[in-house]
Amino acid sequence: MATQPLFNRITLIGAGLIGSSLARVIQTHQLASQLTVTDEQSDVLDKVGSLALADEVTPDAAQAVQEADLVMLCTPLSAYGTIMQTIAPHLKPDAVISDVGSVKASAIDAITPHLPAGVHFVPGHPIAGTEKSGPAAGFATLFQNHWCILTPTTHSAPEAIEKITALWQAAGMRVEKMNAEHHDRTFALTSHLPHLIAYNLVGTALDFEKNTQQEVIKFSAGGFRDFTRIAASNPIMWRDIFLQNRDALLEMVEHFKQDLNQLSTAIRDGDAETLEKQLTRIQALGLAKD
Amino acid sequence: MATQPLFNRITLIGAGLIGSSLARVIQTHQLASQLTVTDEQSDVLDKVGSLALADEVTPDAAQAVQEADLVMLCTPLSAYGTIMQTIAPHLKPDAVISDVGSVKASAIDAITPHLPAGVHFVPGHPIAGTEKSGPAAGFATLFQNHWCILTPTTHSAPEAIEKITALWQAAGMRVEKMNAEHHDRTFALTSHLPHLIAYNLVGTALDFEKNTQQEVIKFSAGGFRDFTRIAASNPIMWRDIFLQNRDALLEMVEHFKQDLNQLSTAIRDGDAETLEKQLTRIQALGLAKD
Repeated sequence: MATQPLFNRITLIGAGLIGSSLARVIQTHQLASQLTVTDEQSDVLDKVGSLALADEVTPDAAQAVQEADLVMLCTPLSAYGTIMQTIAPHLKPDAVISDVGSVKASAIDAITPHLPAGVHFVPGHPIAGTEKSGPAAGFATLFQNHWCILTPTTHSAPEAIEKITALWQAAGMRVEKMNAEHHDRTFALTSHLPHLIAYNLVGTALDFEKNTQQEVIKFSAGGFRDFTRIAASNPIMWRDIFLQNRDALLEMVEHFKQDLNQLSTAIRDGDAETLEKQLTRIQALGLAKD
Repeated sequence: MATQPLFNRITLIGAGLIGSSLARVIQTHQLASQLTVTDEQSDVLDKVGSLALADEVTPDAAQAVQEADLVMLCTPLSAYGTIMQTIAPHLKPDAVISDVGSVKASAIDAITPHLPAGVHFVPGHPIAGTEKSGPAAGFATLFQNHWCILTPTTHSAPEAIEKITALWQAAGMRVEKMNAEHHDRTFALTSHLPHLIAYNLVGTALDFEKNTQQEVIKFSAGGFRDFTRIAASNPIMWRDIFLQNRDALLEMVEHFKQDLNQLSTAIRDGDAETLEKQLTRIQALGLAKD
């Protein structure tokens, strides 16, 4: 790899699936001379230590960022404001802040007001993950061949964008820039709505027949299993995503409900022609994906 | 395997994913002395011939069943009535009819009135499949380690049930008996609702932003991809399932919609506590599946 690491010191705040996977990438490709990891959960931090995923682990975020050239936020979105309050006074004047949050407009709103003069900020969203959570679930190839979206603001200096781009490229990602609002609408449709729907469907099964949950699980190979897998994702992370991308998500939910009413009406009316036409149209998009 | 085949002559009507996979099982395990396949689509029949999946292929269903000890219906559900009208006069007196349809009450209603005296009928539903269709997509291990549900009626003689059980066990399935109405309610929840929801979600994306479909496909790894895969399933088969299990399915849709309204309200109200509680409860069922 590079004879000179990309960053001198990197600090990761939050060591869940994404943070711990990024730690492994940084180690594997020697992207920093020194890697510090901090997390407010002591069991997470202990696990990072025992897995030797960092040069230094500390529960003290303020201390963790003091020498950092890059501070990457890898926590649920709702923690951003408090974290920035804590770390802002301790950041180096030319440090770069970045994040991995799935909603960008609210991430920008939470971080920007706390930025000290001279500190750069490059909002990011690596589109990668599994339904597993925690530092033991991470792995260095998680990001490979996936997209990473950056949504630069006026606080994103070109050199800072370049370095964050290089970081995610080293992780195997294809990096694309996008406006934050466009990002949030796009992912409301391709990610946030599908997750809400999957959670909802599994919830329906939960409520519906308490005495036949065993049966639901037993026969889940009929289609249900894909949904339970998606709905096994981290509930805190998704609570934050749903709340912070509320307007775009609720707009998509309305469209989804209108469409479901149309399909239900065709089924209720025994309208085989409409149903077949609609399912065939939809299948074509599914097949287009291959 | 057995020195004596399970059946002397087996005729499969319909050679899609399920029928052609069963043909491969019958050949692999030598479950019949003679295997005949018929299908109303000439291209399907040609493919069965070129893949050498049967001893005999014929477009003439009436002729195909004349010597058959087992006739297995592997077509979409809506074809059952017409097929039974065609073949009933040509069935052997002690033949066994069975099927693989995903809705059992309506399958029984369509087939039973046409049963000649002495002909046995064992309704069945192998819970296996992929999103692919057609004889080239089939494979002999499709059924392995999945469940097969039989829903016997007064026309199901014990020996007939035993032989159909042995057939699906030879395919690697675990066989369970169930009341047809209970089957249809269970699979409305674990299979038919998930498929309807997946079709609907992909349909929403289709309608929503015609000019950003490329983007939807490009970033589908965020969650959307699982749904497009499910929605790539055979639209004729699913049209029939939705229509023939209408009452149970629409009841599940109503519950799903009520639950979605509750989740949407929590999101609209910014009710983080309710949302987290609900998502955590749902996640537990997802995790219970592993």
